[in-house]
Amino acid sequence: MDNFKYLAIVEWAKKYIESEGLKPNDRFLTEKQLCAIHGVSRQTVRQAMMRLESENVICRVRGSGTFVSSRASSPAAAPAKKTVGVISTYFSDYIFPYIVTGIESVLGEAGYSMQLAITHNQVIEETQALESMISSGVCGLIVEPSKSALPNPNMPLYRELRENGVPLVFFNAKYPWADFPCVSMDDEAAGKKVTDHLFDNGHRSIAGIFALDDIQGHKRYSGYVNSCLEHSVKGFEQNVFWYATADRNNIFRYARDKLIDLFSETTAAVCYNDKLAVGLLKFCRENGISVPGDLSVVGIDDSRYASICEVPLTTVRHPHSMLGSAAAEILIGMIERSRPDPADRIFTPELIVRSSVAKLK
Amino acid sequence: MDNFKYLAIVEWAKKYIESEGLKPNDRFLTEKQLCAIHGVSRQTVRQAMMRLESENVICRVRGSGTFVSSRASSPAAAPAKKTVGVISTYFSDYIFPYIVTGIESVLGEAGYSMQLAITHNQVIEETQALESMISSGVCGLIVEPSKSALPNPNMPLYRELRENGVPLVFFNAKYPWADFPCVSMDDEAAGKKVTDHLFDNGHRSIAGIFALDDIQGHKRYSGYVNSCLEHSVKGFEQNVFWYATADRNNIFRYARDKLIDLFSETTAAVCYNDKLAVGLLKFCRENGISVPGDLSVVGIDDSRYASICEVPLTTVRHPHSMLGSAAAEILIGMIERSRPDPADRIFTPELIVRSSVAKLK
Repeated sequence: MDNFKYLAIVEWAKKYIESEGLKPNDRFLTEKQLCAIHGVSRQTVRQAMMRLESENVICRVRGSGTFVSSRASSPAAAPAKKTVGVISTYFSDYIFPYIVTGIESVLGEAGYSMQLAITHNQVIEETQALESMISSGVCGLIVEPSKSALPNPNMPLYRELRENGVPLVFFNAKYPWADFPCVSMDDEAAGKKVTDHLFDNGHRSIAGIFALDDIQGHKRYSGYVNSCLEHSVKGFEQNVFWYATADRNNIFRYARDKLIDLFSETTAAVCYNDKLAVGLLKFCRENGISVPGDLSVVGIDDSRYASICEVPLTTVRHPHSMLGSAAAEILIGMIERSRPDPADRIFTPELIVRSSVAKLK
Repeated sequence: MDNFKYLAIVEWAKKYIESEGLKPNDRFLTEKQLCAIHGVSRQTVRQAMMRLESENVICRVRGSGTFVSSRASSPAAAPAKKTVGVISTYFSDYIFPYIVTGIESVLGEAGYSMQLAITHNQVIEETQALESMISSGVCGLIVEPSKSALPNPNMPLYRELRENGVPLVFFNAKYPWADFPCVSMDDEAAGKKVTDHLFDNGHRSIAGIFALDDIQGHKRYSGYVNSCLEHSVKGFEQNVFWYATADRNNIFRYARDKLIDLFSETTAAVCYNDKLAVGLLKFCRENGISVPGDLSVVGIDDSRYASICEVPLTTVRHPHSMLGSAAAEILIGMIERSRPDPADRIFTPELIVRSSVAKLK
């Protein structure tokens, strides 16, 4: 995933030039210094430098070094009206680098630069990101909501954006009260497909483990419920375990006994996403539960984890970079052709069968 | 709370007469038999008998015994158009008997009988309750939603009720997608009042423990968040623990270590309701945490628990039977005066200060 880190360095470098008060033709940091500061490879820094050069933020003079571009700090170099703010819950891991790269490639081709902020799924960090982007006058926003299934104190900020006609596209989920278009996978279909697959393989007693704070968790749960009902299984409510995203790794420690009980009464588990499923595989190994012999496990998202983890995961495919590209395309349409209310774009996920599901007799 | 059990016996008796095929003037069960069947006191059975007699379901002949009324099984005795269906998550415990009694007293005075069903907060039991009440042709419904914060497979049933013009009033919470009036406490104000009270007493690091599956949990959390933000406390997201209602008693066992960690970093805890707070008091005693010396605890609802538990609880007052009465009054207005869309009725809760909060210097 390291090859996506350069985007964070690009953003960091722009802020560095501003906060250090560097003037045009001032000497910029060397590749070596950037490697040390960010703890990344020379290759990653080179990608960042190329991007900074192409955006006319720096210029490299062979044999002399790297300098702040003569246009870097002038408004003409990076006019606010050509900057799009991108707010994501995470960035450097899982499916997020692909999504952000999809956004960035479409924005870049259309001549927009990207200002990136990460919320770690914290509403307080979302407040800060929104305020900073509003004050820097971005021409549009692409936002992944934080804790989309819970009440959110940033509701007034989103209302303000709407009233001021700021183009905004959500990705992965949308706040139910926010009137902006959204690009997402069909999460309900995803939850239903993996659960149907377990029923098709003879399972009847199926655990579901879902994120409680994201709308995706609720929708994937809804697909799981609909599959159970279609298969006339009524006792499923006892087989659901909910966790807060921030606890994803902790639950296998603090809720160990509860999970052991749950898996002793079920033959399969639907996991909110591949990341959780990978944690569950480790938990099973440590507790002597064989996968898929004792417990079948399915994930959602088809992240890189799914194919390389200890038991290759059956999962459904998230559109990854295509989803990011679609979000950027819709946003550009809103900015340039003043389309105020484009429709949501929903990707239908495809089941990917690997080795984590046993066929019951 | 035993004195409210008679209502369940009344409903049971009506079904018993029907399922046993008892005809008018057939001998009905004795008080002694009913005591044995239901494991309740003679006093409770007498209340049930009085109610059954007043509804003309049975008649008691001094010196002879109790008989099925000559009108009991005829449609005229309990015409479907005069029966209101009441669906509640729980019944025999906590604030629920008071709410149902409030409903029952208003319905009874207006000449309606009540058909009662309990869902145990399970959507599957809600399906069964709704279907049974629709098929028995009730003239209106008073419903406490089950798992109101999660996707619900009964959405089509509610849509059908709406399209058929069946009067319905929700209490305690409403499904966000269901277009019926609701009678509730202002849960956001409740969460805010108890949290404000902790700030007023010098607390800054405040844990919040909320039910994840009910809208009330989300709203009380929202009040907690707003109080934190008004007091410029930003790190609150790390101090929130969510649980599923069905796990309310289990969390103190399975999530013990997580809770111990949480309370070591906070000086107070906002509990979703008094029931949870009582569990927390026991947990604190068992783990050597003094209340309010080491940890201040606040509840919500002002149930009977709040005044009689080991440390009398500071809490806010739920309207209890007044809320039930208001729900019944609104429903009767919808039935008799064909008011299709009355406004929601929201009760403002009042803070009740007892002994569970310490003043920090």
